[in-house]
Amino acid sequence: MSEESVYGLHAVSAILRRRPAAVRRLLVAANRNDKRLAELLELARIERIPIESKSTAELDGLAAGGLHQGVLATIQAAGPMAEDEWLVRLSALSHPALVLVLDGVQDPHNLGACLRTADAVGADAVVVPKDRAAGLTPVVRKVAAGAAETVPFVQVTNLARTLRELKELGLWVVGTDGEATMAHHAADLAGPLAVVMGAEGSGMRRLTREHCDLIVKLPLKGAVESLNVSVAAGVMLYEALRQRDLAAGGSRRGA
Amino acid sequence: MSEESVYGLHAVSAILRRRPAAVRRLLVAANRNDKRLAELLELARIERIPIESKSTAELDGLAAGGLHQGVLATIQAAGPMAEDEWLVRLSALSHPALVLVLDGVQDPHNLGACLRTADAVGADAVVVPKDRAAGLTPVVRKVAAGAAETVPFVQVTNLARTLRELKELGLWVVGTDGEATMAHHAADLAGPLAVVMGAEGSGMRRLTREHCDLIVKLPLKGAVESLNVSVAAGVMLYEALRQRDLAAGGSRRGA
Repeated sequence: MSEESVYGLHAVSAILRRRPAAVRRLLVAANRNDKRLAELLELARIERIPIESKSTAELDGLAAGGLHQGVLATIQAAGPMAEDEWLVRLSALSHPALVLVLDGVQDPHNLGACLRTADAVGADAVVVPKDRAAGLTPVVRKVAAGAAETVPFVQVTNLARTLRELKELGLWVVGTDGEATMAHHAADLAGPLAVVMGAEGSGMRRLTREHCDLIVKLPLKGAVESLNVSVAAGVMLYEALRQRDLAAGGSRRGA
Repeated sequence: MSEESVYGLHAVSAILRRRPAAVRRLLVAANRNDKRLAELLELARIERIPIESKSTAELDGLAAGGLHQGVLATIQAAGPMAEDEWLVRLSALSHPALVLVLDGVQDPHNLGACLRTADAVGADAVVVPKDRAAGLTPVVRKVAAGAAETVPFVQVTNLARTLRELKELGLWVVGTDGEATMAHHAADLAGPLAVVMGAEGSGMRRLTREHCDLIVKLPLKGAVESLNVSVAAGVMLYEALRQRDLAAGGSRRGA
């Protein structure tokens, strides 16, 4: 498997917390000494990840001009995750699951943007069917802006079966369709959740739709018939995040 | 100016309501006779727009295989709107204004997706600076999926001055930045509003930022440093729409 670089305090911290086993080495600027970096080095030591000291010029070169803030991790490039392994992992989460299911998205830019947003909301996976859908190509990885290395990407043989398994794990499966009557923000999205988006143009397949617990619409007040799928996924996932933030704030206020 | 086609009951109805003066002719399938189409023909008669009867095969050809539902409007392709004209129009709105300001978005796909979303939420305009920003190219029109013909697109010489004018008209100017402390959903977005998004990579310019009444962030819980600009714009605009829907529902309940 090929090697990729992740750099910057935020991104390196995220990969150390989320996929520590994938990190091969941590390269740190010799002249840096701040609190956030120290925390990050402590995390690497706990995970027994080799740490090497580099000059700022060397890091500049490795990050190809990107803003590395004195730290860069070399990681094993992530491939799709095996479905069985993923379901086991999903059943062991300590937070309410958040999964994005894309039913046949073909455009690599759309898949990349969806991965980027899924990472941004802290989603637990992006799930796609193996057939007639974009996979993890170099274009997808680039558009995903690093998220292809951090968000579990699961290609499944039978999407309907996977949706049944998600329901058995207690996830609420919510699809999106312009013909639905309930607005997305009227649905309860705070609990364990799988958001299902249809393909560009054709929408969700019939069998996928039949496996949804609920279908909601993103209100359309103008002339266009639908949103770009990555925009629609972003609106749905951020609405779920908003409801979770409120729920968490509520329980803190109650404590 | 060139001529474009808009087809389908939803899209034709929207352009008849929003830009009737741009509609040159309405072409209607001879064999169609339903309630939604009748309403639409009534609207066209009020606006004194010529109506022509066509065969379904002719409409199929004109819509290039698109789903026309028996109706197609030929319209004058929209160009950018003059700033003065637009400000006058904005001051006469009967609903709380909703404007999307893009401070230097360069990618035509991003601009197209932003126009599509702006149309979807019923925004009153997309505002961009004249320099160093994408304009209404054919690629933008295509990605916008018809929204370039329906959403007023305003290219301004001096964005800071325009933001001052929007404030004078009573709009709340809200910028987005990952470094902000307030989450987007904690801000009051229900009143007259201009949402300001920065350029890909570099974000808002200093002068633009200084003209914002408030800066909010879209929470980022993963490794990526930012969202795609069209996704971020979608999340902001749909949060504004959600708050407006709630406010409207609240007053209806109170009535």
